[in-house]
Amino acid sequence: MTTFICHTCRSKAVIRMRQHRLAFCKEHYLEWFTAQTERSIQKYGMFPRTARVLVAVSGGKDSLSLWDVLWRCGYETEGFYIHLGIHGLEDETDYSAQSAQYVRQFAQERNLKLHVVDVKKEYGKSIPELSRFSPKGKTKPCATCGLVKRHIMNQIALDLHNDVVVTGHNLDDEVAVLFGNTMNWQQEMLVRQSPVLAEYHGLARKAKPFCRFTEREVAAYALLRQIAYIYEECPFSRGSTTLYYKSILNQIEDSHPGSKLRFYSSFLKAREGGFFNSPEQDHPSQSFPAQLCPSCKQPTTRSGLCSFCSLITSQNPRKKIP
Amino acid sequence: MTTFICHTCRSKAVIRMRQHRLAFCKEHYLEWFTAQTERSIQKYGMFPRTARVLVAVSGGKDSLSLWDVLWRCGYETEGFYIHLGIHGLEDETDYSAQSAQYVRQFAQERNLKLHVVDVKKEYGKSIPELSRFSPKGKTKPCATCGLVKRHIMNQIALDLHNDVVVTGHNLDDEVAVLFGNTMNWQQEMLVRQSPVLAEYHGLARKAKPFCRFTEREVAAYALLRQIAYIYEECPFSRGSTTLYYKSILNQIEDSHPGSKLRFYSSFLKAREGGFFNSPEQDHPSQSFPAQLCPSCKQPTTRSGLCSFCSLITSQNPRKKIP
Repeated sequence: MTTFICHTCRSKAVIRMRQHRLAFCKEHYLEWFTAQTERSIQKYGMFPRTARVLVAVSGGKDSLSLWDVLWRCGYETEGFYIHLGIHGLEDETDYSAQSAQYVRQFAQERNLKLHVVDVKKEYGKSIPELSRFSPKGKTKPCATCGLVKRHIMNQIALDLHNDVVVTGHNLDDEVAVLFGNTMNWQQEMLVRQSPVLAEYHGLARKAKPFCRFTEREVAAYALLRQIAYIYEECPFSRGSTTLYYKSILNQIEDSHPGSKLRFYSSFLKAREGGFFNSPEQDHPSQSFPAQLCPSCKQPTTRSGLCSFCSLITSQNPRKKIP
Repeated sequence: MTTFICHTCRSKAVIRMRQHRLAFCKEHYLEWFTAQTERSIQKYGMFPRTARVLVAVSGGKDSLSLWDVLWRCGYETEGFYIHLGIHGLEDETDYSAQSAQYVRQFAQERNLKLHVVDVKKEYGKSIPELSRFSPKGKTKPCATCGLVKRHIMNQIALDLHNDVVVTGHNLDDEVAVLFGNTMNWQQEMLVRQSPVLAEYHGLARKAKPFCRFTEREVAAYALLRQIAYIYEECPFSRGSTTLYYKSILNQIEDSHPGSKLRFYSSFLKAREGGFFNSPEQDHPSQSFPAQLCPSCKQPTTRSGLCSFCSLITSQNPRKKIP
């Protein structure tokens, strides 16, 4: 087996990154990883040093590592966790309860402020229960879950007056989404995909500081920092198209190291350089947002209640939306 | 084994196309294939019924099948074959001589006019010889081969006053190129990729009537029509990125039938709808063509001799370019 040496100190390396032609020992990997995070934050103009940052944490390696890096870098952070009420399939562990435990432990150890929203307590039903009534949602609650998470994330950011919400999306997540949007040339989605979304008409500013790290690089950070996190993927993600695209992209990366980052970077460069015409610009009347939801006051393209409030009220006729 | 029945006559099918949810017997497959070729010609405005069509033939299944369909449909066609002088690697058959033989046989059987350009006879050196002097060309003459073929193809079309040159590129070829251009977001290439290229400042009109057929569909046509063709791929194509992308796309197609056609069609739709800004439009001074080559009179972006004439004269200082 070939031994690799640290790019910085020439001692034995613990991680090698073929796509960067780099290898590092533990100390210099952590240093590199932190510097690269800061670099992405600056490169994409995500948020300034003084920003009040809200970290969306799931209990997985990505979001907890992100919170850890930002905290170590001295950013003013607080976390929030959405308890989705996902219990796992038969014979499985309690996915949401376990991930909540990892998040609480992480915040306590570092004396960081954590906000928790329990979907069932707050809105009367868990994610699997909420999605049970939509035809597709019976087996795959992912669409409902996404809708609920986006709504709550935005609401918390607005309520707490944070400057930006950050999520732990890594390069593998980003390229899988990009790949899916490209395979179908979904123009609106391509125009929108970005490592940072500006605050816009009641939508909080959002950023993904880990967008240039592969999943493997983030996992190495979590491991070397001994961050305890939930290893299991959400039980509902099995067999998803995203996981399928990830496996295809891993194959390409294995045979052509650097493909993922090149795919993503050259896309962002093309997008920033104005290569895409926004399909929305031709139809200003259809552009977002049309109006505010009369119930939650968040922006919506629908007339009347937004998708989230419609979902909640249709299932809990007497439930007041907080 | 499941038996499939013909979509048209309900007899036993000989081919099933999952992505179209169609199966056909021999007779109705040939009928469908021919009608679909005509449909593509019309859909993309490739050429009118009365056009004088020059078919670029290589001796492979795609170009010979294309010539066969167009001939049967009553188009006025003539073919041209470029003898590249590729002899194959060790222990292999004479690739160019064999493919030339298939082309001649095809044209003779149908009493069709065939033009042959022998690169070595015409320009003093074969493709492997011409590419030997470029650093990359020693092992991979594909770039030189492409340059030479494009030049000769255009020259013949202009000399013979044909209305359009057609090539046998199939859907697999088109999506492999598209995939490569997308993985690196090569903007100029994405803007240009099209099933039809208009005549433009000394560049002949070009079209790809088989752009919506998979390789398998064309192979089935050749088989059912008993067209004799060269089975071997060019010996230099082994290990190429295009073949690698084809294998990846075949995997995706296997698990998600229709992916290739959806990827290609939605790309063309986005392109036609003006989704892409041409990177050239911002820099009219760099746009093509800048001038005509003083030697061959074909358009070129270079000042002085075009790439083709430079290649030929650098290797044959006293050779007159025809």
